[in-house]
Amino acid sequence: MEKRNLTLLTDLYELTMMQGYFDKGQNETVIFDMFYRSNPCDGGYAICAGLEQVIEYIKNLNFTYEDIDYLRSLNIFSEGFLNYLSGFHFTGDIYGIPEGSVIFPKEPLVKVIAPIMEAQLVETAILNIINHQSLIATKTSRVVFAANGDGIMEFGLRRAQGPDAGIYGARAAMIGGCVGTSNVLAGQAFDVPVSGTHAHSWIMSFKDEYTAFKHYSDIYPNNCILLVDTYDTLKSGVPNAIRVFQEMKNAGITLSRYGIRLDSGDLAYLSKEARKLLDLAGFEDAIISASNDLDEYLLHDLKMQDAKITSWGVGTNLITSKDCPSFGGVYKLAAIQNEAGDFVPKIKISENSTKITNPGNKTIYRIYEKESGKIKADLITFADETFDESEDLLLFDPVDTWKKTTLPGNSYYMRELLLPVFIKGECVYHSPSVMEIAKYCEEEKNTLWDETKRLFYPHQIYVDLSSKLWKVKQDLLNKLS
Amino acid sequence: MEKRNLTLLTDLYELTMMQGYFDKGQNETVIFDMFYRSNPCDGGYAICAGLEQVIEYIKNLNFTYEDIDYLRSLNIFSEGFLNYLSGFHFTGDIYGIPEGSVIFPKEPLVKVIAPIMEAQLVETAILNIINHQSLIATKTSRVVFAANGDGIMEFGLRRAQGPDAGIYGARAAMIGGCVGTSNVLAGQAFDVPVSGTHAHSWIMSFKDEYTAFKHYSDIYPNNCILLVDTYDTLKSGVPNAIRVFQEMKNAGITLSRYGIRLDSGDLAYLSKEARKLLDLAGFEDAIISASNDLDEYLLHDLKMQDAKITSWGVGTNLITSKDCPSFGGVYKLAAIQNEAGDFVPKIKISENSTKITNPGNKTIYRIYEKESGKIKADLITFADETFDESEDLLLFDPVDTWKKTTLPGNSYYMRELLLPVFIKGECVYHSPSVMEIAKYCEEEKNTLWDETKRLFYPHQIYVDLSSKLWKVKQDLLNKLS
Repeated sequence: MEKRNLTLLTDLYELTMMQGYFDKGQNETVIFDMFYRSNPCDGGYAICAGLEQVIEYIKNLNFTYEDIDYLRSLNIFSEGFLNYLSGFHFTGDIYGIPEGSVIFPKEPLVKVIAPIMEAQLVETAILNIINHQSLIATKTSRVVFAANGDGIMEFGLRRAQGPDAGIYGARAAMIGGCVGTSNVLAGQAFDVPVSGTHAHSWIMSFKDEYTAFKHYSDIYPNNCILLVDTYDTLKSGVPNAIRVFQEMKNAGITLSRYGIRLDSGDLAYLSKEARKLLDLAGFEDAIISASNDLDEYLLHDLKMQDAKITSWGVGTNLITSKDCPSFGGVYKLAAIQNEAGDFVPKIKISENSTKITNPGNKTIYRIYEKESGKIKADLITFADETFDESEDLLLFDPVDTWKKTTLPGNSYYMRELLLPVFIKGECVYHSPSVMEIAKYCEEEKNTLWDETKRLFYPHQIYVDLSSKLWKVKQDLLNKLS
Repeated sequence: MEKRNLTLLTDLYELTMMQGYFDKGQNETVIFDMFYRSNPCDGGYAICAGLEQVIEYIKNLNFTYEDIDYLRSLNIFSEGFLNYLSGFHFTGDIYGIPEGSVIFPKEPLVKVIAPIMEAQLVETAILNIINHQSLIATKTSRVVFAANGDGIMEFGLRRAQGPDAGIYGARAAMIGGCVGTSNVLAGQAFDVPVSGTHAHSWIMSFKDEYTAFKHYSDIYPNNCILLVDTYDTLKSGVPNAIRVFQEMKNAGITLSRYGIRLDSGDLAYLSKEARKLLDLAGFEDAIISASNDLDEYLLHDLKMQDAKITSWGVGTNLITSKDCPSFGGVYKLAAIQNEAGDFVPKIKISENSTKITNPGNKTIYRIYEKESGKIKADLITFADETFDESEDLLLFDPVDTWKKTTLPGNSYYMRELLLPVFIKGECVYHSPSVMEIAKYCEEEKNTLWDETKRLFYPHQIYVDLSSKLWKVKQDLLNKLS
């Protein structure tokens, strides 16, 4: 994405609104929040990802001659506005939560402070990028949790929703905890481990399965994972694999990384039977890996049933987040700067009370229990509020306000989540490498209680509002209704 | 995609297998079929799409110096093989079913005839591209069917799985029957209609809703669709919209395309109430459009409940095909050329009998009922079989072979579906424009019986095998089991 100009990757209404503001000479500075409303897959958290691509997108924003010509051809834009666009670049501030962070609903993941025309243009691409990568990072973290320490490989490129979904999906999967991807382009672009062995077609292209295995072991003796289900897993595949491993051993080859891959049938049964056959032949350290329509639920069950698999290739269900293929992030106006330079909070009402937005210029504090280092709650506050960790902290549910708790001073500590990314149009943030982000994400996940990581009916972390923010919100609601 | 080099958009195992063949000096010509196993969303058919992007991908295939350097850095490829890759280009034949065609399970949508190293490399990208676009074109055709003549706009870019999913998803949505997209980049790239008006933020950025509407109508009097649900749809939004329409009328403006958009709440109830208010005010021709988590099922129900909506914006559920976010296409070896130049059929067995492949060099004939022009069945045959439409045609189910039917001579006609796309590495196919493909797709859908287009439990079209192909398949199965 670093070289792609995605300036026109926007909904037409962003441009029609921009022209509206242009015509009215109205370009006050505003604040938009990007946030999401509920965790994917009924989970207890999400992982944010995609900020690096948002940065590249913002840096590359400019309307080429071809873009201007195309917009002119639509016959809805004035020459004055097109002239403005031809000189467009982003001049605002952007704050973001670092990639790989654990996040919760209703928290601003990205906060854009910019003249309204600029803030409006970037809505669609920011949503597209963050929604996609956060979805896949979150899904991956669930699959990794289910695997309970086993390595997960990302194998989904062929079923991803287009090239980018494969490429950036692999990036997000690495952030979420995969140990590698089959996607070579993603490996090149993000310097992450790639892996892969052979397909059924390899087996079928030789006169028989043994010959196919034998040739493979000749070429790749140090990474010899043989696919055993082309004809019959237990009657043909595993015995032929054992024969080849034995021949390698007899030839004095040190078997380092070797084993089998199962890609069909019942993986619990087949892996146990294959394990017995391999062990009996003296190949106790042969790896048994598996693929075939895996997701966190099946993986969880296979582990419960003591499947003898230690390496998992996960494809379609991870790269599309099959049971929940969209993240649902939105981008909402939170405040407008008045002539005095103050941000006036704005709110969007909705028939559905969970869709009511949080007004104002906000930030987020994560509150950790000092003893365990685990997350106690998140607190959304106005950006200029300050807190003293030595004082008691009152937390209350913003909807059911009678649900309260007070954290004694010095029993907790706080960390601000939003960091400056662009200031006055200049990028001030250096994106870590994908593997650095993955490491940070691992640490982030360690701040979650196991109860929150659970796949089914997890404990939900509270995201509260500061008293001051809650009051401003209530006042706005009372005024509007 | 026309300028992007996606050569490394492949699974690593394609390259490790290629090196395996390279090392063995084994590069015989083979045939791979790309096909899918079941219709998305339990439907009765699918729509194929993506061939143009496959053509661009194949034309652009080449390993750059950077690509070779990257592959070298993996320490698994020999210099001899890397040298071969640096001169790589595609030299084979590709046959494909034209985009926008109605397709059924198990039919080869793309057939690749090439030296095995080349045929193997292109697997992943072909699957990625065709799987994605066919999925979205199919989903769109279902939504369009549910809308029963109303126009469907594609609004999903912000929830698409990355930029390409938005861009090529919009392309596929236009093929499947959308009348336009909000995605400006897709509009530019594929010369398809774009549309859009304004967001809630437009309303919120003015001192009140009326002022926001008024300003919008000043700028866009000819396309004035006002979003009425920011504060209260029936108490505030619709009355303010009517006030603005009345003022436009009073000012002598001819109201051409105007109306309201609903984006939350119960769309059946709100649209009926809004229709009453608009009609009462003399705005019988005001459009009522709607968005908000629509899919074919909700749209079908809203139409059944006589919702007064004639224009629909469909986002997330279409662009991700939410209830079925992957198409499931696969790419399987079907034949290997022997030294005499004949294609020897190959088959993959599976524990699951529906996963057994169809062997050999095949083509597909579509059989139409002469009287109605509707599809009677599809027939997969060897590529060199010929048929005489004046003779009786026996069709039988390839699994339940006792299910038979004989079509009397001259009561049917046949059409071959696969067309040459590349011959000896040269592209021989000219892709129509997206709007031409969309028109062709409309004609294609007219060859389906209504029973097959039904959203729930549709009638399934038979895809049969020729007697000759069925016999060869049985012989191979008997030999292997």
